[in-house]
Amino acid sequence: MMRNIKLLIAYDGTSFSGWQKQKNADTIQQEIETALTRITNAAVTLHGAGRTDAGVHARGMTASFQTQSAIPLFQLQKGLNSMLPFSIRIMDAEEMEMNFHARFSARAKTYHYSFDTGPVQSPLSRLYSVHISHPLNLANMQECLDFICCTHDFASFEATGSRDRTIPGGRGSIRTLSRAELTQRGENSYRFTFTGDGFLRHMVRNIVGTVLDTGRGKTTVAEFREIVRKKDRSCAGATAPAHGLVLHKVYY
Amino acid sequence: MMRNIKLLIAYDGTSFSGWQKQKNADTIQQEIETALTRITNAAVTLHGAGRTDAGVHARGMTASFQTQSAIPLFQLQKGLNSMLPFSIRIMDAEEMEMNFHARFSARAKTYHYSFDTGPVQSPLSRLYSVHISHPLNLANMQECLDFICCTHDFASFEATGSRDRTIPGGRGSIRTLSRAELTQRGENSYRFTFTGDGFLRHMVRNIVGTVLDTGRGKTTVAEFREIVRKKDRSCAGATAPAHGLVLHKVYY
Repeated sequence: MMRNIKLLIAYDGTSFSGWQKQKNADTIQQEIETALTRITNAAVTLHGAGRTDAGVHARGMTASFQTQSAIPLFQLQKGLNSMLPFSIRIMDAEEMEMNFHARFSARAKTYHYSFDTGPVQSPLSRLYSVHISHPLNLANMQECLDFICCTHDFASFEATGSRDRTIPGGRGSIRTLSRAELTQRGENSYRFTFTGDGFLRHMVRNIVGTVLDTGRGKTTVAEFREIVRKKDRSCAGATAPAHGLVLHKVYY
Repeated sequence: MMRNIKLLIAYDGTSFSGWQKQKNADTIQQEIETALTRITNAAVTLHGAGRTDAGVHARGMTASFQTQSAIPLFQLQKGLNSMLPFSIRIMDAEEMEMNFHARFSARAKTYHYSFDTGPVQSPLSRLYSVHISHPLNLANMQECLDFICCTHDFASFEATGSRDRTIPGGRGSIRTLSRAELTQRGENSYRFTFTGDGFLRHMVRNIVGTVLDTGRGKTTVAEFREIVRKKDRSCAGATAPAHGLVLHKVYY
């Protein structure tokens, strides 16, 4: 009997070339598919809720696959964790209806982006947090976040060349952010939280890079709003580094 | 003119053979001494506030050294950080009186020891936190901590063969803990905090290993008290793994 299984996956993306399978590169999808194929004795295609770029981490990535294998869930999870490197862990495995698909059934996602301030970054956070040594105006940054926290055309924050714009229909680059916050976590430690119904390629990292420009006074809040309205990637700030980003949760 | 300089040092101990210089091994003391010798153009001996074992981390290690060099402090710090690997950072540099010594002037230290519970550990905390998969009785653990939080002979928690016991005088294995606490930091994430006027070799890791035995019901709180009273290392629990331990602060 065919089964449809959802995996909850956490990974340290430091030494991977991202989620998606590709030739001659270590990817998380490839590692898990290889282990699944060994465990179930059949070729398995794993559908992730989305792709994460090289160096990006996950606490709550989800993926689904179909299998004829009768292996109990706890044994599947245990088997995968015994084969996978410690930088990838299967946190949970769940039996789903056959029409569930990790990507197409997803309603929303939450991403975290962490950074440290102060003159020198602690080596204990260097793998999961970006270092910003210049002073930041946090109130201005929160104002930018308040502005984008609703439905917008986020074209200014979409990686160039990442989508075939000639395809008719679809929602284009319009997305809805229901949460865009900046919170302090420690003396010199901060975190952005973004929840949205979908994210364009590099969208979080491009928003973070552009909001940080306002934080350090390179642009004003009014200019930030103008950048969003222009729907032009070339107006926005640089893409923030990958290692500050964590896919925190996928909602169904 | 001779100067006496104190460094505040943070490091990720994952890939080091501990603090103290030794032949054919990467140590934190060696890395910093080599960089200091290059910067000041003279052999430098660096005195750490204490030693940390292989794999142990630090957020607030201190060390002092004397030099004839006239290099300004900010330039010394910047120069060191440009030469050192990113896993070691000089967080601060300070001019001290000539009679200051990082080890002999230290009045107290605080250590943190972190662990995660739950069936599977997140890969994002695996480098700095130990995974305990069995259920723990946290109230019993706190009772153990309350008991040791004062002046005791901590011989039961001292690494065997770590001290020449024939040396007359000195305080032997008597130490005073002014703080011994267990706090929850996240859903499955906990931290011990120990502050004391001095720590014997492996003392924190041996206390943690023995308290965890009580947490999982291998020993009772009464038996834990008995273990302390016996002053016999062979009665206590196993030494907890190095990577959960962080030297948090040294007090002067």
